[in-house]
Amino acid sequence: MAIIAWSGTADKLYPVAILASAAAATGWEVEVFFTFWGLNAIRKELLNTPPKISADFSEYAPAVMEAIKKMNYLPWHELLRQAKAMGNVKVYACSTTMEMFSIKDKSALADFVDDVVGVATFLERAKDAAVTLFI
Amino acid sequence: MAIIAWSGTADKLYPVAILASAAAATGWEVEVFFTFWGLNAIRKELLNTPPKISADFSEYAPAVMEAIKKMNYLPWHELLRQAKAMGNVKVYACSTTMEMFSIKDKSALADFVDDVVGVATFLERAKDAAVTLFI
Amino acid sequence: MAIIAWSGTADKLYPVAILASAAAATGWEVEVFFTFWGLNAIRKELLNTPPKISADFSEYAPAVMEAIKKMNYLPWHELLRQAKAMGNVKVYACSTTMEMFSIKDKSALADFVDDVVGVATFLERAKDAAVTLFI
Repeated sequence: MAIIAWSGTADKLYPVAILASAAAATGWEVEVFFTFWGLNAIRKELLNTPPKISADFSEYAPAVMEAIKKMNYLPWHELLRQAKAMGNVKVYACSTTMEMFSIKDKSALADFVDDVVGVATFLERAKDAAVTLFI
Repeated sequence: MAIIAWSGTADKLYPVAILASAAAATGWEVEVFFTFWGLNAIRKELLNTPPKISADFSEYAPAVMEAIKKMNYLPWHELLRQAKAMGNVKVYACSTTMEMFSIKDKSALADFVDDVVGVATFLERAKDAAVTLFI
Repeated sequence: MAIIAWSGTADKLYPVAILASAAAATGWEVEVFFTFWGLNAIRKELLNTPPKISADFSEYAPAVMEAIKKMNYLPWHELLRQAKAMGNVKVYACSTTMEMFSIKDKSALADFVDDVVGVATFLERAKDAAVTLFI
């Protein structure tokens, strides 16, 4: 499975982490490519800021955040870290977006990032995936 | 074709229904997995509320709704029901989201839902799909 | 690679163009199907209006637009035009959306549109793609 993680809202980052988790648990290889707002969301200093919910559904945001807490769900980035510990999950940061956001290198990003690569490199890896998703 | 129907706005639910419809009409097997806001949108009591349009394009919402009416387009969920009647379309509800929204069982959802499954089960079915989309 | 370009904001149209560009540069065949807000964004009269950024991230919009300018990035539609000149990229406009927005024919759209087709025709072409994305 190859996922392009473009979005930076919690309601889309949870699916990224949950899909990676479920796929890793059943033995799949998973590649996640963080780009644009997704890359912004994994900057170390933003990782633990209060999560955003899509503007389209902001009226539900408090209830959803409450439900996630009640279910004792981990933050999405902890779920992704668990998925990496458990299975074959690789995480990439988009080099073009790094330049756009003036991020020097991967030390500024969450420690679960394996490598900084360009989109061509990612596509090369994605082309054998059974499931490809832009989230 | 395997679709993860994540969004709950009409401008994304129409593509879900139209893609399912077109694929079913040409004999494809289609699997649709409603999750997050997509699952919320198929609760029985929300199915017939006035449809929402993405916040990004809200300035066009009245014109689009008017155009859909003028074209005599069915509501998106009627299109999906038609696609099911016509071809090989299976509709699943995400069990994790059910728990998050405190939805007890599928009797609270639109009658076109075939089953409540976890993401791992859905991925198992999606892995042989020629086309996989997160909408 | 087959891309359904549904969105009309610059932060999603850039990925469409960059992915098409990277894929074309490495010799892939690329098919892009503009639909809904994506189709609206390639109307001739809207192509050069100031680009929109997703409402979810509007607080970053000025900084991102500034960064894109500083990096001397072409507008997304120029990138897509370059990708077409360089490689095997086909661009389609969704016939259903044309009708919905009362667009008569492809003369009203950007000149990089190859053809107006229905979703069934696009799916037929997408089914052999190694990577399928809904953006």
